[in-house]
Amino acid sequence: MDQLAVGICGLGTVGAGVFNLLEKNAEEIARKTGARIRIAQVGCRRDNPHCDLTNIAVSRDIYALVNNPEIDVIIELIGGTDDALTLVKQAIANKKHVVTANKALIALHGAELFQLADEAGVSLKYEAAIAGGIPVVKAIREGLAGNKVEFLAGIINGTTNFILTEMETAGDRSFADVLKEAQDLGYAEADPTFDIEGVDAAHKLTLLASMAFGMALNFGAVYLEGISKITVQDIKYAEEIGFKIKHLGIARQTAKGVELRVHPTLIEKSAMLAQVNGVMNAVMVISDAAGETMYYGAGAGAGPTASSVVADVVDILRAAGDAQIENAGFVLGAIQDLPVTNISAIESAYYLRLNALDKPGVMAQISTILSQHNISIETLIQKDLHKGEVPIIIVTDCVLEQAINAAIEELEALHEVVGKLMRIRVATF
Amino acid sequence: MDQLAVGICGLGTVGAGVFNLLEKNAEEIARKTGARIRIAQVGCRRDNPHCDLTNIAVSRDIYALVNNPEIDVIIELIGGTDDALTLVKQAIANKKHVVTANKALIALHGAELFQLADEAGVSLKYEAAIAGGIPVVKAIREGLAGNKVEFLAGIINGTTNFILTEMETAGDRSFADVLKEAQDLGYAEADPTFDIEGVDAAHKLTLLASMAFGMALNFGAVYLEGISKITVQDIKYAEEIGFKIKHLGIARQTAKGVELRVHPTLIEKSAMLAQVNGVMNAVMVISDAAGETMYYGAGAGAGPTASSVVADVVDILRAAGDAQIENAGFVLGAIQDLPVTNISAIESAYYLRLNALDKPGVMAQISTILSQHNISIETLIQKDLHKGEVPIIIVTDCVLEQAINAAIEELEALHEVVGKLMRIRVATF
Repeated sequence: MDQLAVGICGLGTVGAGVFNLLEKNAEEIARKTGARIRIAQVGCRRDNPHCDLTNIAVSRDIYALVNNPEIDVIIELIGGTDDALTLVKQAIANKKHVVTANKALIALHGAELFQLADEAGVSLKYEAAIAGGIPVVKAIREGLAGNKVEFLAGIINGTTNFILTEMETAGDRSFADVLKEAQDLGYAEADPTFDIEGVDAAHKLTLLASMAFGMALNFGAVYLEGISKITVQDIKYAEEIGFKIKHLGIARQTAKGVELRVHPTLIEKSAMLAQVNGVMNAVMVISDAAGETMYYGAGAGAGPTASSVVADVVDILRAAGDAQIENAGFVLGAIQDLPVTNISAIESAYYLRLNALDKPGVMAQISTILSQHNISIETLIQKDLHKGEVPIIIVTDCVLEQAINAAIEELEALHEVVGKLMRIRVATF
Repeated sequence: MDQLAVGICGLGTVGAGVFNLLEKNAEEIARKTGARIRIAQVGCRRDNPHCDLTNIAVSRDIYALVNNPEIDVIIELIGGTDDALTLVKQAIANKKHVVTANKALIALHGAELFQLADEAGVSLKYEAAIAGGIPVVKAIREGLAGNKVEFLAGIINGTTNFILTEMETAGDRSFADVLKEAQDLGYAEADPTFDIEGVDAAHKLTLLASMAFGMALNFGAVYLEGISKITVQDIKYAEEIGFKIKHLGIARQTAKGVELRVHPTLIEKSAMLAQVNGVMNAVMVISDAAGETMYYGAGAGAGPTASSVVADVVDILRAAGDAQIENAGFVLGAIQDLPVTNISAIESAYYLRLNALDKPGVMAQISTILSQHNISIETLIQKDLHKGEVPIIIVTDCVLEQAINAAIEELEALHEVVGKLMRIRVATF
């Protein structure tokens, strides 16, 4: 194959990034592949001032592209799950390969789309959907193809990582304050719920778990906890006992089932994932042969996302237009409906923070309650008295979620304990 | 393709790892690919007690494998560059794909082998040759295919990284002492020259630079400096001023040419590469679209190396036996004989350590010499007097190698300066 014709649907930040990267590095790509990627048509509601569309066929109707017989590959960058779903289905029906950066589309409709692509014999690729410019889809599906993946944990949302990093660095800024800055910098949306409550990370975790374990996409089963309750005080206490707080997506295969969870997590300061700051992303994978590997890079932005989109297109080019790798990473018939473990049955170590009245016997009461639930204490720190209250920090050993919940309920019922407990999971990997 | 037949040549640690991984994960690989990898024959001088060879055809003559018409893929794990070269050439001549973990073979004979493989229409793959279980060959050639790579730096030799980490952690152990431990643990060879003087890292750097820039393999042009002169004192001083010392392979494309160098390097403590400890490896890549990405994992060992070997075999399986990706990462005709910049013309910041007599005016003399060579001082620390001598630590701004060399010569000629200067490059990425 000496040429591959692509149609770019959507010319926003990422669309413009892909357009310009294909133009800028056309020679470099030809040096690598012996072939050229030609932009046959662009579909967009309005032109993008960052793209020179002089010699490009532009359509205001994106559906014109999926019906253009010249086009081999549809690059879907319109986002959302309505038009994008219709567009991708029509592209597949017309035997066109599809490359997308749309994590929600694949997380929610991947099963149907993979089936359709499989039947049509086309590729449906989505490297850009997870962790921006990091080739982690390729690493898991191909680089670790000989392995059984046991566990993965990722910082897969730049917004939450930026906020936590800023709170940690500044030391005196609240979540709300830093969120405002992230919005001003364009790192967070006007409605930031999607990022800060973990929905975006859950979409990506759904894809990662599916391609790592060969399990059905199961977005609805992901346990979600956001970062809005994390205080600067928690970040400081965590630091004192040797940890950083990161918002992780975690997938683990155990004898009980698969754990799928997105939540703030204390991780040891010396861990590789603890070094991932600001809007950077990283995914750590533990697999049976390779052991621990980690993939690090920019999680978003026009350049990094375009890098992954173009990598997918080059894969299709190099495969001479054949669908070369099972789209879901596994043969469709081999994908299993693995049971997802309910969060109440998951074991974790915990960081607990509570405020107690400065009275004798408080510590004994707390210890007794924990002990009655068979919860061992790994670390216990009583901080200085402040306004008649004593902050107490506890790190427990691994216990079942339901045990810690029961203990927390009893602790909060003590009249020496003021207000609610703060509870954050502690990584044991 | 529902089956691919492989022949494993060499059944040492890595060979046994590959054999056992293919057996152990046969079902998982079938789930991923819809096909099976069958071990058609094993060629080895003696059986390996870790492998059950009951139902396997074993030959004491490895050349029997390349002449076995049943075999699609030869896995070369005998090492060295004599028999291995002959074996691989015969395999290619017989139209068999080749997977190898042999960095020296590719670094020294890759140009010829790629040409032969290209003409024969077979794959020659070597993911396991660089950084063990990390799929970094795939990341650069495929994951970053849309990028121009500008720079890469890697911790690509586990032995040197283990020694430097141990010296740093213990704080009172010499290079020789830790080397002995590394030998006892099997991390270093009886003759450790190959690792500690950087030859092994240079082989890997040669491959990385070739696939990143599309340049001819040019092992002879790599500048080499080992770690045997690094003292615990240097590690401590570096720590005091915010750095760690790592043994890096660095490749950079500049207007002057390509820099190819392996040497100890001070890198900022907060850098991702600074977190890579013990026998772990990592490669950091800076490219025009993706920006900075990093790939981390185990650099050696049976499991990680087998993981990469099997990944290559799975790639061949998924490509249905076609050579799917240009073996050198670039079309052979597009590979350029890029000029390699001589070390004397390379700019770097430097860490200098010297011992001076405790006399007035010494500091002025030192400063004057540096200033006469237009060398700016970034940091200067005079340590406590010790046995009549004062250790002085200087970190310079970026200067040409030839300038620092001239300055060092003049500094060493001062009769207030005792003995030789220690000189270590400081990373500016």
